[in-house]
Amino acid sequence: MINRKQVAISIGDLNGIGIQLALENHKRVCELVKPIYCIDRAMLEQAASKLALAIPEAFQTVEDIAPCFEIGPGSVSEASGAYAYASFCKAVELAKAGTADAVCTLPIHKKAWELAGVKYKGHTDALRDFFDAEAIMMLGCPKMYVALFTEHMPLREVAGKITLEDLTRFLLDFYRTAKPQKRVAVLGLNPHAGDEGVLGDEERIIKAAIKNAHQQLDKQVFTAPLVPDVAFTPNVRARYTHYIAMYHDQGLAPLKALYFDEGINVSLNLPILRTSVDHGTAFDIAYRGIKLNALSYLNAIRYIKERDQE
Amino acid sequence: MINRKQVAISIGDLNGIGIQLALENHKRVCELVKPIYCIDRAMLEQAASKLALAIPEAFQTVEDIAPCFEIGPGSVSEASGAYAYASFCKAVELAKAGTADAVCTLPIHKKAWELAGVKYKGHTDALRDFFDAEAIMMLGCPKMYVALFTEHMPLREVAGKITLEDLTRFLLDFYRTAKPQKRVAVLGLNPHAGDEGVLGDEERIIKAAIKNAHQQLDKQVFTAPLVPDVAFTPNVRARYTHYIAMYHDQGLAPLKALYFDEGINVSLNLPILRTSVDHGTAFDIAYRGIKLNALSYLNAIRYIKERDQE
Repeated sequence: MINRKQVAISIGDLNGIGIQLALENHKRVCELVKPIYCIDRAMLEQAASKLALAIPEAFQTVEDIAPCFEIGPGSVSEASGAYAYASFCKAVELAKAGTADAVCTLPIHKKAWELAGVKYKGHTDALRDFFDAEAIMMLGCPKMYVALFTEHMPLREVAGKITLEDLTRFLLDFYRTAKPQKRVAVLGLNPHAGDEGVLGDEERIIKAAIKNAHQQLDKQVFTAPLVPDVAFTPNVRARYTHYIAMYHDQGLAPLKALYFDEGINVSLNLPILRTSVDHGTAFDIAYRGIKLNALSYLNAIRYIKERDQE
Repeated sequence: MINRKQVAISIGDLNGIGIQLALENHKRVCELVKPIYCIDRAMLEQAASKLALAIPEAFQTVEDIAPCFEIGPGSVSEASGAYAYASFCKAVELAKAGTADAVCTLPIHKKAWELAGVKYKGHTDALRDFFDAEAIMMLGCPKMYVALFTEHMPLREVAGKITLEDLTRFLLDFYRTAKPQKRVAVLGLNPHAGDEGVLGDEERIIKAAIKNAHQQLDKQVFTAPLVPDVAFTPNVRARYTHYIAMYHDQGLAPLKALYFDEGINVSLNLPILRTSVDHGTAFDIAYRGIKLNALSYLNAIRYIKERDQE
């Protein structure tokens, strides 16, 4: 219990399942870190009452997040969206000020943010703008993390984004901020990793970027471009904890096939560390007395605990 | 044991593990189908002796496949490549003549085919040419089959290949020859299946092709384009046995992550049915007395057994 990190927890959309996760798992979370929940006491009491859950002892909250409102389980609302955004901003503020060591975000509803006039599509989008930094999106669980070199763009644009300069910088930023302990699996772009150029030649650029990165780091930390459809087979994945995928579905389809329930979302390469559950508000089961799977939430907290101090 | 299908088994590269699989699993294979092994008796006796395995009873062979040669365990050789190709041609011939109901191919070595002057890169390539037909490549196991709309091409060319005419024809050919019992999962091309066009618009074409196919079949057998990275999660894959992927790694990376050892390769949409193990010659463990995993081989045989008669 000594030197537990302080973690600012943004409470997410209060019409969803986030607050139930926070209340039910407080004790386990406290074994890992020292949580600061970005929710007003009045809202906490209202939610706990609606959930018929007791508020655990030493549940540290923050006042004056945003105007209180009547929780509507499972409904998309402007007030709830505004509250979720304010809670997120408060958590980031605590981390920026050094009051918290990191931020863990509970799920928001994107449509509710939109109704509340929030100009960002989601947390990562907002963080990039707050810090004017090239956040790196990494998803996964302790058995396998996958960082995405390109994210939300049409597949037809992906190959054109593989440039020597951008990929070299990405590899260096990734290595510095993800701090992998083992060699990192870098995927090729094309089927069979291009089969010596027969099925595409972007692997040439990937190899050159890896070479650049190795020179700058003065050590060999990345693999040569791996054959993408073989890279996630049991024998190969036994060798790696971190993968770098060239595009969204290349990394996330195998990851979610294998470890869907356990996944978290990590924003790297920002002045603050932020982790998140990798699921949504689950409005369909919110405030229904249904037992929630907390694997993703606890993994998101655990990631913060286990990170080396910056 | 009544009405077992006759299956012509091409023996693959005799310097590899194929013949060991055939000998060790003959009894189990005979419970499923009636195998005809495309190997000369003299070569069979030589291999069995080198493997220190008895030749099972009723092991039906075919004479005059190709010139006999001295087996060199684990070596890439012209004679072995020529023999493997001749064995494959014989198996296809038996199927074309109606002597066999289907072909199951044991692994060949592509370099050995090349040394032997064979002009094809592999079985599928040869079959396309033999029959001048648009073979459909499907990989998987009874839990999940994945058919590929595009196969071995650079990723940057994939999006341009999604055309209404070609995809409509593919869907119809697939449905007619794969004979899926459940609704078929069709994947989108882009992340989030395009997110209503924000991340690419090929899903518009995919939807139109599905609509065309449904009109021609006069029934609804395909899903709308699924979000690719969610399509292989446990809850979603519980609903489907067959997937159609728009490109190689979209389908094969999740498939091999989940079911690597069990996978088979099926060539559909040809005048004959052909299945294959989904592994190579494993020269490193050939003729070493190592117990082989026969899951893929037995699944390849089982697929033929369980297919409706044409």
